[in-house]
Amino acid sequence: MSEQTLYVSGHKSPDTDSICSAIAFANFKTQMGTSATPVCAGSANKETTFILNHFNVAHPQIVENWETFAPNGGDLFLIDHNESKQIIDGYKSMNVVGVVDHHRIGDFETDGPVYIHMEPVGCSSTIVANMYFDNNQEIPQTIAGLMLSAIISDTVLFRSPTCTPKDKATAEKLAPIAGVDIESYGLDMLKAGADVSDLTNDQIVRTDMKEFSEAGQTISIGQISVMDTTELLAKRDELVAALEALRSSNNYAASYIMITNILKESTDLLYSGDADAVVSKAFNTEVKDNGVFLENTMSRKKQIVPPILGAMK
Amino acid sequence: MSEQTLYVSGHKSPDTDSICSAIAFANFKTQMGTSATPVCAGSANKETTFILNHFNVAHPQIVENWETFAPNGGDLFLIDHNESKQIIDGYKSMNVVGVVDHHRIGDFETDGPVYIHMEPVGCSSTIVANMYFDNNQEIPQTIAGLMLSAIISDTVLFRSPTCTPKDKATAEKLAPIAGVDIESYGLDMLKAGADVSDLTNDQIVRTDMKEFSEAGQTISIGQISVMDTTELLAKRDELVAALEALRSSNNYAASYIMITNILKESTDLLYSGDADAVVSKAFNTEVKDNGVFLENTMSRKKQIVPPILGAMK
Repeated sequence: MSEQTLYVSGHKSPDTDSICSAIAFANFKTQMGTSATPVCAGSANKETTFILNHFNVAHPQIVENWETFAPNGGDLFLIDHNESKQIIDGYKSMNVVGVVDHHRIGDFETDGPVYIHMEPVGCSSTIVANMYFDNNQEIPQTIAGLMLSAIISDTVLFRSPTCTPKDKATAEKLAPIAGVDIESYGLDMLKAGADVSDLTNDQIVRTDMKEFSEAGQTISIGQISVMDTTELLAKRDELVAALEALRSSNNYAASYIMITNILKESTDLLYSGDADAVVSKAFNTEVKDNGVFLENTMSRKKQIVPPILGAMK
Repeated sequence: MSEQTLYVSGHKSPDTDSICSAIAFANFKTQMGTSATPVCAGSANKETTFILNHFNVAHPQIVENWETFAPNGGDLFLIDHNESKQIIDGYKSMNVVGVVDHHRIGDFETDGPVYIHMEPVGCSSTIVANMYFDNNQEIPQTIAGLMLSAIISDTVLFRSPTCTPKDKATAEKLAPIAGVDIESYGLDMLKAGADVSDLTNDQIVRTDMKEFSEAGQTISIGQISVMDTTELLAKRDELVAALEALRSSNNYAASYIMITNILKESTDLLYSGDADAVVSKAFNTEVKDNGVFLENTMSRKKQIVPPILGAMK
């Protein structure tokens, strides 16, 4: 084992894919001969905690700032993100050697050529799992479990429009290795993540929050997925107030939270900021009380970010 | 064959890799079930013409502007480039669906996720050839010849520091399929490309020219590879004057031409514009008469672009 390790990290406000894919990819690189260490930008959410416990995997080390964590620099591989605002702070002191992602490519730029593998699939773990398959690498049971969980999470058990045939086929190859039944394990996992009863309003609107920039403005979009939206929508005004506090303290042009109903496959999008015109244009609909109801909408990446950034142009 | 084809294009001022990889990748996509058509941004240079003649392959259609070429839009796949300044004009009317490249990632941005495969190897055709291998696709003799030629061209017969073990191994797998001897065919091919006797000074400084942007400034860097630099360096002042005409007519901050000696593996870098300080800083050396001699330097991508853009910051 060399002293120099390759760090593998997902995005800020880490979700299941960012943590599980980082662990799975670091293990893949290590199996292929490059010592690699997964890290993450923050604590696992409830869903990811359920998964780490189920497969008895340790929580990766948390890195809040690269300059303090690795004062001498080092190699960094980005998983599940590429936009600068989603990368752990201080990353410019690191040598970014590669990206595996399934999102839009944002402001990512390098001086020299690096390895980049991006595919429009539903989950980064789908890409990582196929690296194991393509390179005839054995997949340990726990790693298969983490990658399967990430696919279930990102595709909401294959219900999301971001889910591709490749995601489903990959999950079906991973399930027997992981030793779980996709449907029953998947529902248990999603239920664990959908428990919002003990979250404060501030925590709710910051769930899986990401920043995006367009036309010189920065916005934030969070997403919280539940089995039933009644409880959250009952305190709609409080949530808009929490969004406004989040927005003004970060100087965002607007702050959004997607309240996604996993079973009905729909989303209530709430927001604060001067965004009525943007939302109205983005979804070609009238807006009311800082919110809009969107049927057949579960995917931030595919159904929310492109129209909103498009309307901001 | 559907009416809608996927267009596959390399960069402006196309070199051998941009044309051969576009043809090879379009054939790969077609074999995989997606009808694809290679195009290119301009006429093949002497080296590429030698190759197309040798393998009896038609010159791809030239596209000068997408808006006039495909007024109804269509799908576009970029090979061997990603920076906006290197893409054929008018591409914003097209739907860019993917990128295969081996250069730095520049200002490439998409609204939604797309397919991107970038590797720090010496040649785009190395990536494309391995797609055939990984997908168990048969490689037609002519396509193997084009990809082998691209690898020989980009790596200058494996002499360039950009050449990786994967480039060499891929070339060695392609040669028997193409039915040529790498060394003798490669030297013939490079000689055909290195014949500069009938080029005007303006054509010389525009050879394989690419634009790059940093810190709000745009520069151009061309490269001409020869077996002997004596003839070109004898008219050094005329070439600097041609660079200045090129620079001022395009409002570049600076225009560079790499005069690369294939056999000695060195480069004379000439330039015009207010670039003395940048060049001096980039290569940590004194500059004289708008030029600098660089030993062991053949790669624009790896040895010229990163230090120059770094010094411009």
